[in-house]
Amino acid sequence: MTLDDLDTPAVIIDLDVMDRNIRDMAEHCRKLGIPLRVHTKSHKIPEIAHRQIAAGAIGVACQKLGDAEVMVAAGIQDILIPYNIVGPRKTERLTRLAKRARMTVAVDSEATAQGISDQAAGDGCRVNVLIELDTGGRRCGVQAPEAALDLAKKIAAMPGLNFEGVMTYPSRPEARPFLAKTVELIRGAGIPVRTISGGGTGHESMAKELDLTETRSGSYVWEGLSRIGNSDHLHENRCPLRVLTTVVSVPTPDRAILDGGMKTFASYPPKPYGRIVEHPDARISGMSVEHGHLDTSACSHRFAVGERLSVIPLHQEMCLNLHNECYGYRKGDVEVIWPVAGMGRVK
Amino acid sequence: MTLDDLDTPAVIIDLDVMDRNIRDMAEHCRKLGIPLRVHTKSHKIPEIAHRQIAAGAIGVACQKLGDAEVMVAAGIQDILIPYNIVGPRKTERLTRLAKRARMTVAVDSEATAQGISDQAAGDGCRVNVLIELDTGGRRCGVQAPEAALDLAKKIAAMPGLNFEGVMTYPSRPEARPFLAKTVELIRGAGIPVRTISGGGTGHESMAKELDLTETRSGSYVWEGLSRIGNSDHLHENRCPLRVLTTVVSVPTPDRAILDGGMKTFASYPPKPYGRIVEHPDARISGMSVEHGHLDTSACSHRFAVGERLSVIPLHQEMCLNLHNECYGYRKGDVEVIWPVAGMGRVK
Repeated sequence: MTLDDLDTPAVIIDLDVMDRNIRDMAEHCRKLGIPLRVHTKSHKIPEIAHRQIAAGAIGVACQKLGDAEVMVAAGIQDILIPYNIVGPRKTERLTRLAKRARMTVAVDSEATAQGISDQAAGDGCRVNVLIELDTGGRRCGVQAPEAALDLAKKIAAMPGLNFEGVMTYPSRPEARPFLAKTVELIRGAGIPVRTISGGGTGHESMAKELDLTETRSGSYVWEGLSRIGNSDHLHENRCPLRVLTTVVSVPTPDRAILDGGMKTFASYPPKPYGRIVEHPDARISGMSVEHGHLDTSACSHRFAVGERLSVIPLHQEMCLNLHNECYGYRKGDVEVIWPVAGMGRVK
Repeated sequence: MTLDDLDTPAVIIDLDVMDRNIRDMAEHCRKLGIPLRVHTKSHKIPEIAHRQIAAGAIGVACQKLGDAEVMVAAGIQDILIPYNIVGPRKTERLTRLAKRARMTVAVDSEATAQGISDQAAGDGCRVNVLIELDTGGRRCGVQAPEAALDLAKKIAAMPGLNFEGVMTYPSRPEARPFLAKTVELIRGAGIPVRTISGGGTGHESMAKELDLTETRSGSYVWEGLSRIGNSDHLHENRCPLRVLTTVVSVPTPDRAILDGGMKTFASYPPKPYGRIVEHPDARISGMSVEHGHLDTSACSHRFAVGERLSVIPLHQEMCLNLHNECYGYRKGDVEVIWPVAGMGRVK
């Protein structure tokens, strides 16, 4: 089966390019001396996670329990969920995983830690816990080193939990005083801090500079751009993921319509929506739910119904999350059809 | 099972409200005297389509072949795909459906019509065809009545096709001269025009005024707003669909974090992202991929980790399309768990 045999729209992945991105990031982190934990939210495909681990990653991060369930079921053994797991329905699912794999979660409140402790103690297993620090990302996280110390003491005393360390996102220079003070306070209280986890593709060397014990990176699989500079956001040689589309209408000389819109590419402000590889001067001017609108007025090429175009979407992760499957290929031959296993598992 | 038993985030549907929306729209169209064809893209759930037909709809419209396959497999017998079906992989799927249900498609080019004709003639079946007219929507569609006449003559002569009529989107007053002239020209050439199809929830009475033979409406199932006025875009009494969420973090007094972000709600510019039913003065200020950010500074309520909130998302259709299943309930009791059958079937 070749790419020409595929119906459209289809997410296609150049495996040579993806493998190179995986290899290069592993090598980059090895040289830096910072352990790499790969974030599976970017793909939700267990086999890709296994390739990343084979290349040298120490384990994976999953943003949702539903993703983690998919990864454990596929044999992944070391998973960090950098997310507050709240409520008995979720903590029960978490302990099921903790009996089968090394599970670590992040918490930023006593309530969340207590819920996990109650469940784990009742189920006779242990869950590793990091405290999330809000070092300026303004999302989750405790607000001060002293608050982290208070919470660390409570977690260290809770049954069913292993206090493991701290995490933050993203890894930035501004995080240094908060991180350093927190680790100093917790260690000063006699509580070991084994893990200091930071994140964000492109922040690997900063993670090393901040003396972190691991860096979480995910989007490098698709974009491969952060370590080569953000200036060329859609550099084609580094982007293995494309959406193969078909022109279904050319109603006027300056307009062509693709067979995919917001439910194929994800709507993601601001524009541009993506780049047409074959004709970069054809601009994706808008999207309906199922149609992509091309402004071809700056294009000398005359588009025809039935013509196939490949599009590098702006946000590869959100795009892939809309597709039941994707197609990995090398030099035009389809080598694998991957179900997007974690898709739709929002819980 | 009650709503309290559900893990979050979960799409929940108040069936009493949904049934009322379905009943009211059917009654509205009956009184107007305009046949209603319901658009399944809004939900992608066959049982809801069957309820809409039971309430009086003449059939359904599906925006993609993948949706139509789901509906035919669920026993729906009259389907319009108002979309150019292009390429042999798709035309083959179309004729498979045409042997099992009454299938009508829209085309706006000879190339698209010819592809369907070749397939249908070869497969020994017939496909009904409408010509799409661009009456100002500036998406697909032929550009002038004379062009429509030319195409109608060609379609009428193609084996395997039944020329059935014309369609446009949306139904607006500006469409009148284009529609009237086209129908006059085609009928003048001795070709019957049995169907004149228009679309858009809220355009039902305009469809009647334009002498259309049917109106395609979809989003009324969720929003129920267009026929009661667009002024109150998220009027809660008409909105059966909500996302049940959990507060997973309250890092500061003016910030709360929900357990769903862009992959739960869909990112949909412009803001607002949606409304918190219990606390409308808590503003969804942003979304990460898996976190919802609440600005609670204008709120007297103190949010707590573990608290559940229901959110009316801005774009219900895009939101539902991200979930593997949804939960229909009455007065708090879960009555049905529906797989979102058409989700991810982008082809």
